[in-house]
Amino acid sequence: MSSIERVCIVGAGAIGSLFIGHLGTLVETTVLTRRESHANDLNEHGLRVSGKSTLHARVTASTSPGDLGEVDLIILATKATAVEASISALEGHFPGAAILLVQNGLGCEEVVHRYGNWPIISGVTFMSGVRHSDIHVEYELDTSTWMGPWAEHGADYDFVEQVEALINRSGLKAEAYRDLLPHQWSKLIFNSAVNTISAITDLPHIKSFARQDELSDLGHLVFDMMAEGKAIAEARGVTLADNPWEMNVKAVSHGSTGDDEYGHITSMLDDVRNKRLTEVDWITGSIVREAQRAGIPAPYHETMYRLIKAHETSWDRKH
Amino acid sequence: MSSIERVCIVGAGAIGSLFIGHLGTLVETTVLTRRESHANDLNEHGLRVSGKSTLHARVTASTSPGDLGEVDLIILATKATAVEASISALEGHFPGAAILLVQNGLGCEEVVHRYGNWPIISGVTFMSGVRHSDIHVEYELDTSTWMGPWAEHGADYDFVEQVEALINRSGLKAEAYRDLLPHQWSKLIFNSAVNTISAITDLPHIKSFARQDELSDLGHLVFDMMAEGKAIAEARGVTLADNPWEMNVKAVSHGSTGDDEYGHITSMLDDVRNKRLTEVDWITGSIVREAQRAGIPAPYHETMYRLIKAHETSWDRKH
Repeated sequence: MSSIERVCIVGAGAIGSLFIGHLGTLVETTVLTRRESHANDLNEHGLRVSGKSTLHARVTASTSPGDLGEVDLIILATKATAVEASISALEGHFPGAAILLVQNGLGCEEVVHRYGNWPIISGVTFMSGVRHSDIHVEYELDTSTWMGPWAEHGADYDFVEQVEALINRSGLKAEAYRDLLPHQWSKLIFNSAVNTISAITDLPHIKSFARQDELSDLGHLVFDMMAEGKAIAEARGVTLADNPWEMNVKAVSHGSTGDDEYGHITSMLDDVRNKRLTEVDWITGSIVREAQRAGIPAPYHETMYRLIKAHETSWDRKH
Repeated sequence: MSSIERVCIVGAGAIGSLFIGHLGTLVETTVLTRRESHANDLNEHGLRVSGKSTLHARVTASTSPGDLGEVDLIILATKATAVEASISALEGHFPGAAILLVQNGLGCEEVVHRYGNWPIISGVTFMSGVRHSDIHVEYELDTSTWMGPWAEHGADYDFVEQVEALINRSGLKAEAYRDLLPHQWSKLIFNSAVNTISAITDLPHIKSFARQDELSDLGHLVFDMMAEGKAIAEARGVTLADNPWEMNVKAVSHGSTGDDEYGHITSMLDDVRNKRLTEVDWITGSIVREAQRAGIPAPYHETMYRLIKAHETSWDRKH
């Protein structure tokens, strides 16, 4: 029997909305939003899911955690850049809950742990959605969310398995691992290369990311950067569960091949096109810091990290 | 006595126009242009120079080299990307002339040599101008043009010194070297780092290119890339005449410091902002190829080369 009867989802972007719409049909689901109007709309209309699922969930939403009662599980679904602001608002609330983190990159666990004693479940999500409005999300990629107890202050593995089961029953996909690091690092290294290169070249994730024919081909850079990431993981004692280069080749291997070739708009490319600060400090920056700790060189990661950080500063300049 | 009485300048962009306006007041000067209207305007109005010089030169211009008579010196002043198209039009013309090249990067000599037996003077120019119209250029940076005989099929050094003297008499600045390579490589390595990083971050050449305080600071990347370039030069037997990092620090050390800080818009940044193909194959690409010949790694140059090439392909895509 599951002991998870009440869930609070913090952040109602695309990923948060997917959790709300699915879990909201199964357990008592509350939502902490940033905007008052967003909470009002969710309270009045609930949240509708289209695409891979067809659902309509009734939820209780507020901008204040004090309005939401006790919960068994918090799902923190904001972007990495917003974690500190979100979690500081939760300080002192939900003392009996565990918390699942699904941010890109590394390092959000430490931030969360500074604001409360919640047992932490690290997570990596591969699902994607398109947020059509505050009360409607389309479930696009129905891939899994991986999770496991954080090594420093994790939830019991039994509880992690309950979360896994709950998510799977809701119509989303989850996989629990006793040691998430080999999986987390595989996605991290994939994300670090694909996101930064996509964002800085203004290219979606297309076939050229796997092309290695000419000296100037981009696939060489993706390959070399991922090989560097793998070496850094190994130096930190982590053996990757999946091969990031194969993930890259597989991701771009379908679709057309011309100039109009479809390619996934990576989240960092979307951020850069909209001049929003990226998650590069948590993704590529975290790998650079891990390389420093291991005392090994990281020229590719350092380069991409510094280019994205510098590019972010260009938005404040007038041409 | 100088034997240089007739000069033909090929390409009338900013650099070409500076040569036309200055040499046109001293020797018989002809101009080969790409556009008919440009040639007509030059024939009718001559070329006016403002800024560091105040001059008005009468010239003979045409889009066809057959119209321009014999000359003693050709100055090829197009961008590196246009060298092949320009020089192929000169094939069979000006058999008695030597040719001075002032393109960025390496490798234009080989291209020119394929189209004619002209003795070649390699050049590197640091001057800059603003082209206000087809018949008016402003002389902005009055820095020097360095030149020396190309090792494979060079002009006599005596003749190079005559070109140097002529340019200096005209009001521009020139310095002749028996071995230009140590100077050419210093500028090449400086250009390769500053141009590509500027173009890909959308930042002009500002103080952050020399900042090395935080882990994410751009100065680290500029420094590491220049150190790599120096190692490649040494592996190819070239000891740099100038320190590119010091050139970088010096170039950004004046001016204001805020967000509105003035910074030089590098030529590659200007190209990228206007979605024109860059000279990266001749600049960073040539360093990557030299590293391959020397059998040494070039992660920074390879990365920046591939990013710029990939970014150029993004312009053909619709968002």
